[in-house]
Amino acid sequence: MTWGTIATWRMAHDGVVKASDLLTAGGQAGDAVEALINVVEAYPYYKSVGYGGLPNEEGVVEMDAAFMDGDTLAQGAVGGIHNVMHAVSVARALSHQHYNSFRVGDGATKFAQLNGFEMTNMLTDRAKARWQKRLAELATENMTPYDGHDTVGAITLDTTGSMAAATSTSGLFMKKAGRVGDSPLSGSGYYVDSEIGGAAATGLGEDIMKGCISYEIVRRMGEGETPQEACDHAVYPFVAKLKKRYGKAGEFSLVAMNNRGEWGVATNVEFTFSVGNDQAAPRILIAHPGVDGHSTLIEPITQDWLDAYEKRIKAPIE
Amino acid sequence: MTWGTIATWRMAHDGVVKASDLLTAGGQAGDAVEALINVVEAYPYYKSVGYGGLPNEEGVVEMDAAFMDGDTLAQGAVGGIHNVMHAVSVARALSHQHYNSFRVGDGATKFAQLNGFEMTNMLTDRAKARWQKRLAELATENMTPYDGHDTVGAITLDTTGSMAAATSTSGLFMKKAGRVGDSPLSGSGYYVDSEIGGAAATGLGEDIMKGCISYEIVRRMGEGETPQEACDHAVYPFVAKLKKRYGKAGEFSLVAMNNRGEWGVATNVEFTFSVGNDQAAPRILIAHPGVDGHSTLIEPITQDWLDAYEKRIKAPIE
Repeated sequence: MTWGTIATWRMAHDGVVKASDLLTAGGQAGDAVEALINVVEAYPYYKSVGYGGLPNEEGVVEMDAAFMDGDTLAQGAVGGIHNVMHAVSVARALSHQHYNSFRVGDGATKFAQLNGFEMTNMLTDRAKARWQKRLAELATENMTPYDGHDTVGAITLDTTGSMAAATSTSGLFMKKAGRVGDSPLSGSGYYVDSEIGGAAATGLGEDIMKGCISYEIVRRMGEGETPQEACDHAVYPFVAKLKKRYGKAGEFSLVAMNNRGEWGVATNVEFTFSVGNDQAAPRILIAHPGVDGHSTLIEPITQDWLDAYEKRIKAPIE
Repeated sequence: MTWGTIATWRMAHDGVVKASDLLTAGGQAGDAVEALINVVEAYPYYKSVGYGGLPNEEGVVEMDAAFMDGDTLAQGAVGGIHNVMHAVSVARALSHQHYNSFRVGDGATKFAQLNGFEMTNMLTDRAKARWQKRLAELATENMTPYDGHDTVGAITLDTTGSMAAATSTSGLFMKKAGRVGDSPLSGSGYYVDSEIGGAAATGLGEDIMKGCISYEIVRRMGEGETPQEACDHAVYPFVAKLKKRYGKAGEFSLVAMNNRGEWGVATNVEFTFSVGNDQAAPRILIAHPGVDGHSTLIEPITQDWLDAYEKRIKAPIE
C-alpha cells in the first residue's frame, strides 16, 4: 500500500524514520506526523524547534506550531506559546475544536496547562549561553540580531489515503516578544487536503506569508501538477516577485507530497530534507536552487556534510 | 481618475465615506484604508470592533488586526492585542518592519505602548453589561457562548493605482483567551496586490482559514475573473466542500475589488456592505446567497433595515 512522509531539514530525519515505521505498520497520518514532530521538539541540539530552541530577545523560548487533518481540513495552531514541551501536540488538540482552534501567548499556554500537556522550562543551558553571547555581541557590534529560523514542517500520507501536515518552531532567534511567523498560519506555513496533497514551509515567515505558498502548492497539485512542478512554479516566481515588489526576499524552502506519495521541494538556499515512502526508505537529501532560476537541484547528502553538521550542532558555545 | 473602496458590514459605511473623500482628494490607498478602519474602531456602538467591542470570556477585549500594502506586499498584523484604541494602526506600523511584523498577545501590546499608540480601557460599560449578562445566561442555560464575529475588512484603490487592505476585530464574543481568528492571517482574512486587486473576509475565522479564501479570490481575479466571479467561484464551492469534509460550515462573507475599481461580494448569510468608487457614491448594499447555491443576490439597503439596525445597536442591555 502507498504511504509517504517528507519533512524539512536534516533534523527531521529521525522523526521521518519514526513516522515511516508507524505508517508501514498501518498507523494513521495524524499520529505519524505528530510523532515525527515530537522527535524533533524533544532533541536538545536542534536550536530552532522545541526543547533547546533559541529564545526571543528577552530570553523566553516562544514557540509556534500547527496541525492540519487533510481529511476534514480541521486545523489547530498555537503562536507564542511557552513552557510547553510539545507545541505541536497542543496544536493537534486544538484542531478538535470548531471554535478557538488558534490560540496565542498566555492564552495558548493556559490551554496547554489546563489540558495536562507536559510543561517545562524550554531554555536549555546551551540556548541560554547562545542568547547571552548574542546579547554581548549586539552590545558591541552593529549586526543583525536574526538567524536560525529553521522550522520543522512535515507531511504524512497513510495507507488508507489520509494525509496530515504539521509544523513546529521556536521562530527567529532574538525575535521580539510575541512575534509569530508563518508556521501556525494556514496556507503559509502549511496546508493539506487528502484528496490532493500537502505542503509545508520553512524560512523567513514574514516573507512566506506574503505569498500563501503552501496553499498555492497544494492548489497547483490539485490542478494536476506534480509536487515538484507545483513547488517550482509556486516558489521561484514568488521569489522574483518579492524581489521586484518588496525589494528583497528572505530565505525559504518548501516541501510537498501528493496523495500518491510523490514529492517535491523548492528552495532559494541550500536546503536539506528527509523523505520516505513505500518505494524508497527514508533518506536525507540536499537541494539547491537551479542556476536557471526556476528549477531545483536535488542530490543525496554526503557523509562529509553529515559529519560537519553533527560537529556544528554540538560545538561548544564560545 | 479611477478610485474605489469596499468594506464589510453596514458599520463600515461612515468609514467608507471618509475613505472616499480622501481618495477623491488624491489621498493614498494605505492612508484611506487606515482612516476607514479607524472610524469603525472608535465608534462605541459597534460591538465587534475596537472600542465597545465585546470581550473574551475573561472580560478582556482582545483585538486582531492587519494591514497590507498592495504595491510592496508588505504586511503587518496583531493578534490578541489589548488596551489599544486603533489596532489597525499598530498593524500598519508593523508592516514597515521586515522582521517581527506579526505580533501577538503581550508582545503586541508592548510594541503599541513603546511606539506611542493611544492606550485605553477598551471595555465600555455597555460591553461589560453584555458580558455579565452572558455569563449569567451561561450559568443557567445550555447555550453556545459565541456570537458577534463581525470583522471590518476593507480594500482601497487610489488614483495612482495603489491598493491596500486592512482588517480589525475584537473577535468572537466570549472567545477563549488568546483565540485568534482569520483577520490577522494573510490570505485568509485579507490579501491585496495592486497589480490585481484585493479581498477581505468576515465571519467564523476558524472556517475561513481552512480555505485561504481572500488569497484565492485575488488569485482568481489575477486570472481574469471579475471580482464577482472570483467571489462566487471561491466562496460557494468552499462552503460546499467544508460541509462535505468538515461536516459543517460557519458563516462567512467576502468583499473584493480589482484595480479598476470593480467589486464583488459573496456570502452564506445576510450580509451588508458599503462600497464607493468614481462611478457611484458610497452606498450601503445588502447581499444574500442565491438560491442556486453558487451566486449572490445584491440589493440596495432599505430605510426600514437601517432604522431597525440603529435601534438594535443602541437598545438597552436588559
